[in-house]
This record gives sequence, C-alpha cells and structure tokens, in this order.
Amino acid sequence: MAQKPGIPKGTRDFSPEVMVKRNFIFDTLKSTFQKYGFQPIETPSMENLSTLMGKYGEEGDKLLFKILNSGDFSKKVSDEEWNARNLGPISTKICEKGLRYDLTVPFARYVVQHRHEITFPFRRFQIQPVWRADRPQKGRYREFYQCDVDVIGSDSLLNELELFQIIDEGFDKLGLRVLVKINNRKVLFGIAEAIGEPDKMMDITIALDKIEKIGLEKVNIELRDRGISDDAIVKLQPVVRLQGNTKEKIEQLAEVLKDSETGMHGIQELKTVFDYIEKVGVESEFELDLTLARGLNYYTGTIIEVKSRDAKMGSICGGGRYDDLTGIFGLKDVSGVGISFGADRIYDVMEDLELFPKTSELSTQVLFINFGAEEEGFSLPIVSKLRKEGFNVEIFPDSVKMKKQMNYANSKNIPYVVMIGSDEMKNNLLSVKDMENGNQENYTIEQFIEKLRS
Amino acid sequence: MAQKPGIPKGTRDFSPEVMVKRNFIFDTLKSTFQKYGFQPIETPSMENLSTLMGKYGEEGDKLLFKILNSGDFSKKVSDEEWNARNLGPISTKICEKGLRYDLTVPFARYVVQHRHEITFPFRRFQIQPVWRADRPQKGRYREFYQCDVDVIGSDSLLNELELFQIIDEGFDKLGLRVLVKINNRKVLFGIAEAIGEPDKMMDITIALDKIEKIGLEKVNIELRDRGISDDAIVKLQPVVRLQGNTKEKIEQLAEVLKDSETGMHGIQELKTVFDYIEKVGVESEFELDLTLARGLNYYTGTIIEVKSRDAKMGSICGGGRYDDLTGIFGLKDVSGVGISFGADRIYDVMEDLELFPKTSELSTQVLFINFGAEEEGFSLPIVSKLRKEGFNVEIFPDSVKMKKQMNYANSKNIPYVVMIGSDEMKNNLLSVKDMENGNQENYTIEQFIEKLRS
Repeated sequence: MAQKPGIPKGTRDFSPEVMVKRNFIFDTLKSTFQKYGFQPIETPSMENLSTLMGKYGEEGDKLLFKILNSGDFSKKVSDEEWNARNLGPISTKICEKGLRYDLTVPFARYVVQHRHEITFPFRRFQIQPVWRADRPQKGRYREFYQCDVDVIGSDSLLNELELFQIIDEGFDKLGLRVLVKINNRKVLFGIAEAIGEPDKMMDITIALDKIEKIGLEKVNIELRDRGISDDAIVKLQPVVRLQGNTKEKIEQLAEVLKDSETGMHGIQELKTVFDYIEKVGVESEFELDLTLARGLNYYTGTIIEVKSRDAKMGSICGGGRYDDLTGIFGLKDVSGVGISFGADRIYDVMEDLELFPKTSELSTQVLFINFGAEEEGFSLPIVSKLRKEGFNVEIFPDSVKMKKQMNYANSKNIPYVVMIGSDEMKNNLLSVKDMENGNQENYTIEQFIEKLRS
Repeated sequence: MAQKPGIPKGTRDFSPEVMVKRNFIFDTLKSTFQKYGFQPIETPSMENLSTLMGKYGEEGDKLLFKILNSGDFSKKVSDEEWNARNLGPISTKICEKGLRYDLTVPFARYVVQHRHEITFPFRRFQIQPVWRADRPQKGRYREFYQCDVDVIGSDSLLNELELFQIIDEGFDKLGLRVLVKINNRKVLFGIAEAIGEPDKMMDITIALDKIEKIGLEKVNIELRDRGISDDAIVKLQPVVRLQGNTKEKIEQLAEVLKDSETGMHGIQELKTVFDYIEKVGVESEFELDLTLARGLNYYTGTIIEVKSRDAKMGSICGGGRYDDLTGIFGLKDVSGVGISFGADRIYDVMEDLELFPKTSELSTQVLFINFGAEEEGFSLPIVSKLRKEGFNVEIFPDSVKMKKQMNYANSKNIPYVVMIGSDEMKNNLLSVKDMENGNQENYTIEQFIEKLRS
C-alpha cells in the first residue's frame, strides 16, 4: 500500500514561488555583506554534541536535535546503565553528534580551529539553516535560516558603524523601513552600579523594558518585587525620565554614571557610535533604547535590535559586541561584534506589506507552444538562439491541446507565448502573444529579441 | 578547561576561498537551469524515517542518519523490548526522523504531497546537502551537496534533449570538456530478451561494463559464470562487436533486437534522442554506450552518465528516465526524467585542472588604510561613495601598524590599497597602490572610480 506523504512537524517545503522570494532576501543581504568586505563561510550541519552542549543554557540543551550513532549505537552504554533506562545520560552516549542550534557557536568553534589560517580582523557572513526541537507554532519552525555577519579580532567601534550601515542599506534595498535600537551593556551595568545594585543589571533592564506597556508606576513596583532597594529605585528615576534627543539623553546619563568607570566607558562608546552614524548619514531611524537588554549573556558592549516600522513583529535583526566568545574553545581575549538577520520574520513582514518585487528575471520569459513534430523542429533552433542571447525560454515538451499549454504559461506567469504554425513557418515569423494584455503580434526573430531586451 | 575544537569525521568547514569556488559552480548551474525554465524548490533536511526507509536498499537503510526523538525518546519502547536491547527495532522507535539521503526520494514525496498545486510538466531544480553515514575517505563525505534537475509529468523525449543541452551548456560555462554517455534501459532489456535471457539484464550489463578493462574473452567467461547460457553468449557477440559511429551502431542493434518489442521501443528512443542532439548542435561529445547500466533500478528509459575528458574521475553527472518514481507515495503513471550534478567531484576536477576563474568581483576591491582618527574621518565619506557606486570596499578598523594592514590586504587578495595622509587630505587626492604591480599613483575620487570601472 502506498504511503501517505508528509513531512516532520515544524519543517517546511519551499515551492518555487516562495523560493524566489526567499532568494531575493538572501541575495540582497549577501550582496550588501560583500560590499562591506565580508566573506562567506559554511560549517557542517552536524557538530560534535560536546561543542553544542552547555552553550545555550539548560533549556537550549533540551532543544538540541541529537543524531543517533551509526552501527552499534549503544556500545558505550553498560548493561547496568541500559537497564536503568535513565534517558539523559544514555542519550549523550548513543548520540555523539547534534544538529547546529545557531551559527554563533559553530563560528566561535571555526575561528579557534582555523585561527592559524585566518587573517584578523576576520569578516565573515554565514547563511545556513539551524534546528531547534521547539514546540512548533505560527512563525516558529524546527528548521529555519539564520544570516549572520560578524567581525572578529578588532575592538574598533568602526565595526559597529559598518554593521549599522549594513542594516541601513540591507533593509533599504529590501524596501523595509526600520527602527534601529541601540544600547550598551556597559551602560546597563553602570546604571546598576550607580544606583547601588551592581548584581541586578538584568532585573533592572527587564523591568525597564515594560515601561511602554505598563507605565512607570507599575515598573517601580516590579523593581521592588525583584528585590531592588527603595533607595536604588529613587536613584533610578532620572534614568527613566531622560528627556530629549539621543545626544541629550546620553549627556544626562553621563551625569548619573559619572562615578561608574564601566558606565562611563559605555557612555563613551555610545557617543562614538552615534557620532559615526551622524557623520556617514543613514536612511533608517537610529535611537538609544536603555530598556534594550537582549537575552544572550555573552554580549559585553554595544547591543542592537531592529524592528519594522510598518508591521507588528518582534525583532527582525539583532546582535552586539562580545569580548570572549572564543574563550570556551581556548582562544582568549578576542573581541568581536556581529548581527543576525531573521530571514523567516523578514519574509513574513515583507509578505504582509507586499514588498516583494515581481522577480520575473528569475523565471521563464517565453514559452513556445508545441503544435507537433514539424513545428517543433522549426522552433528548436529559435529556442536555442533566444537562450544564447541570455533569455529564459521553454518549449512545451508535448504537442497536447492548446488550452493545456496556455494554462501552463499562465500558472508559471510566463509573459510571452510564441505560436509557430504553418503560416509562421512559411513567412519565417513568430506570432507572439503578450500574456498581460492579450495582444498578439508578428515579429521577426530579431524584432522579438529587441522587444525582450527593452 | 577549554575544549579542543573539532568537527565530526566526514564533515567539512568551508573557508571563504573554497566558498567562492563552490558558489561559482552552484551559480553557473543555477543560471543554466533557469535558462531552460527550471525553478528551485527546497525540502526539509529531515524527513520522516518512514519516507526514507526501504528506498535505498538494505545498505542504504544502514547509512541513514537517524534523529533521536525529543523529550522522552523511548516512550514507545516497552520494558520488555528495551531490556532485550535489540538495536534494530529499538532505533526506529526512538527515532522517527532521519536526515535526507538524496534529493530524489524527497522530490517524489514533494510531487505527490503537492500534486494539486503543481502544474505539470513540473520542471524543478534543487541544490541542497544530503547525508550518508558512509565510511569517510578521500572524496567521500558524510555531508555533501547534490544539484538535481528533473522534469516530471511528461514522457516527451524533448525533455531528454533539454537535459543534454543543460549538461552541454553547464559544463561549457564551467570550462570543463565532457563526454556524455547515453544508453537506454529498454535496449538493455531488449538485448537480454533477444538472446533468450530476459531475467539477466543486470548481469549482462555488469559483465559488458568490463570490456575495456579485461577484454572480450574474459567478459565471456564472466557471463558464463553469471549463469548466461552458451547459446545466449554466442547471440550476444554481434552486440559486443558493434562497429562504426553511433548511428551505424543503432542500426546494427536494431537488427539484433527486431523481435523484442521493448527493445525496438528503446531503439526508437535512442534514434530520436540522437537526432535531436544532431539537430540543435552541441559542444560536448555524445556517444552511445551499451555498457552503461547505472545502479538505481527505478530507471526505465534513457540513462545518462557524464565524465570529464581531461581528468581521471568517476561520473560527475548522471541520471535517467523513470516511469514510476512517485508510485511508492501513491501517484501512479507519472513519467519523469532527471539528472544530478555531483558538485564535490566537479569541484575536485576543476581544482585539478585549475579551471576556477579569479572571481575578484565577489571579494573586496579596495582597502583604505587607517592612519588615525582624522584620516579615518576624512576617508569615511569616500568609502561610502565608492560603495554607493557598487564597489566592495573596506576601511581597516584599527589604526595599527601599516605592515599589518598591508598584510591584511595581501591575504585577502585586495587589488587596490588607498592611503590618505595629511598631503592627500590637503589636496583632496587618493594615493592608490596597485597591489599587483606595486605602482603607486594619485587620483581624484572621480578618476579612481573610473579606474575601478574599467
């Protein structure tokens, strides 16, 4: 009996229509990365489980897809262990490999492994799928693509600027208006230090993050619930009530942080970064957002988050500076900064806002109708000629009913259909139907090539 | 303690230098496929194990990478089964998914699953990695890319022709001279039938495959060893001794097969296919090769194999026509024809023959040396301007020693280095070093843009 075809939950097939749109996003980002001197790398889909485990927190470990060892997969499990059926320890013995969970940890592993071949600062981009055994839901998949771009081996803030320019230019080319939120981990730490709660940086930031949603009073209550002292909450108020534009906010903040060395270092970084942005000029809106924290705890300086200005959607791009990402693999004190574009979310926003161009260049431009052996024989050299001129051309492979062939042209959105019957063969002409307006006209081959060119 | 970084055996990291070359292959093939109206699809990396098992023979089943179920992975295994520790049955209960082994079975699954959205004939290409738990060795990897191109839903031999043209044009663009061997499964069956051994088609073909290596006499011995009757071996001799060009060979063969209906059908197909090739004209050599069998038993008509004419290497592309690929998933009587390009082998041949072009367009064209804050400030708008003009430009992010910056330019093969010091700032000029010949000259920005364009 035949199997009913299906795919694992949380995974997707991509049809040609969707592929063309996805490739538009990938190609646009790629060409932008390359304009700034970034080069592609790829790493294997499977990494040793030891490379992945413990890098994404306890929850992350559970979401790793593990790959069963080949052959006698349980040979490292003793009878005693096997019969105890304790799945946690058994799983890491019957699986030595796992599917990549993100592109950051494999990148850190790559940099350390290849450090003697790499010339630093190393500017790389990487566009590959990642896998997470998350519960699938709308917009969340078990296989999805990440587009990461990082500079590693330089602590210059010029790198931050160039990533901002890439964000600005990349989204501009995609036709998306974005808001770029910038913060700095050193400033966040400085605030916690300045108000006398240096260990509570994350709690403070998480509470502040809710101002727009729940208002200042409720934020203060949450701060108290999170164990922040009343005194500290009072000291925090000027930070919350910062007024004016980014420049003015930074100045007020500098006043609050003047006794925190780390905080003032962060202030200096923010100033430099915003000065750079002003100097080069950008299309997008860039703003300081003190409530921006970003979960990943390897960030140590600038943090970045990008949102669409015209669609309701979480962050569509984000990242930051890390000072010791490669430390876990034995390479200390290498600073880097990077961002990751969320291709699936960008796709959804662009689809919602109808921003995808009609990318006809990628698909077939001309279909030759097949009326039978003789007409086909007459058509073949013309088809070849058009392809040699660089056009995407098809000839229908079977001489079936005209209607079926026209349906095919319609379903593939082919703009021109060429019909060659006995009259056309006699006069050496092409009868061309423009599928958009339905007009039908005769052309010589040269005239038709010219028409396609224009 | 830090982990020693490494990757699973049989997998590879791809550095920027290798990526550029690999992308040259992929991009060349893609643009060729699109010129013939083929459209991209992608399927998930993981398929349900039930989709994959039993499709690649017993050996293939063993080479599938299985993915451990998430959470309580053994919940479908009874205590009794678990304690019996019979790994075969247990593995399919603790793993419901597997990594894709090729692109053909997922394509068949895709066609059946989406048959109501697809307009036939469906012309698709697919470029994605596949995974096999093979023993790794030189040129054989556990993760590698396949590039498949298929037409499904048409039995016209025009489809075969277009795949031949794609082979011809694709390899021509890559700079590879190839020999395209063509055979037909119906002819192979016809031969077996004509000599009175209709069940021995594969044995006969396998033996004939060795003629060049071991000579006719030993082939005849092998045929006898494989249980072919003496009478049949005598009848086979004219087939082995076919003389002349492809057309003449086909005529002699038709004489041998005149009583086999299937065989004569195959002869007619070969005639049509070679007539087509002659008509459209090709660069590559196309020849009939009766010893060509190809292992996969789903082929039913034309079979194709492509070899490099200048490098010792197995087949670098191959495929054929199948009349019932989708039958296993419940869609009967849909004929298709397809070929698969072996990207890794093509890469190795091109590397051996030094056929990769210097693809400088993809990498950085200009590096601005960073002499300090003031020079950097002067340079940034110029860098932006060049990028706006479409060039790939970098500015070194740190004002470190000149030597380090020049080394960076060298290691990335950047052709032009721009130096802007106080003189250049005063005169609004760029001092440009041509890294190929070492010459250094001054340009205005406009002059430099013109130089880059030419």
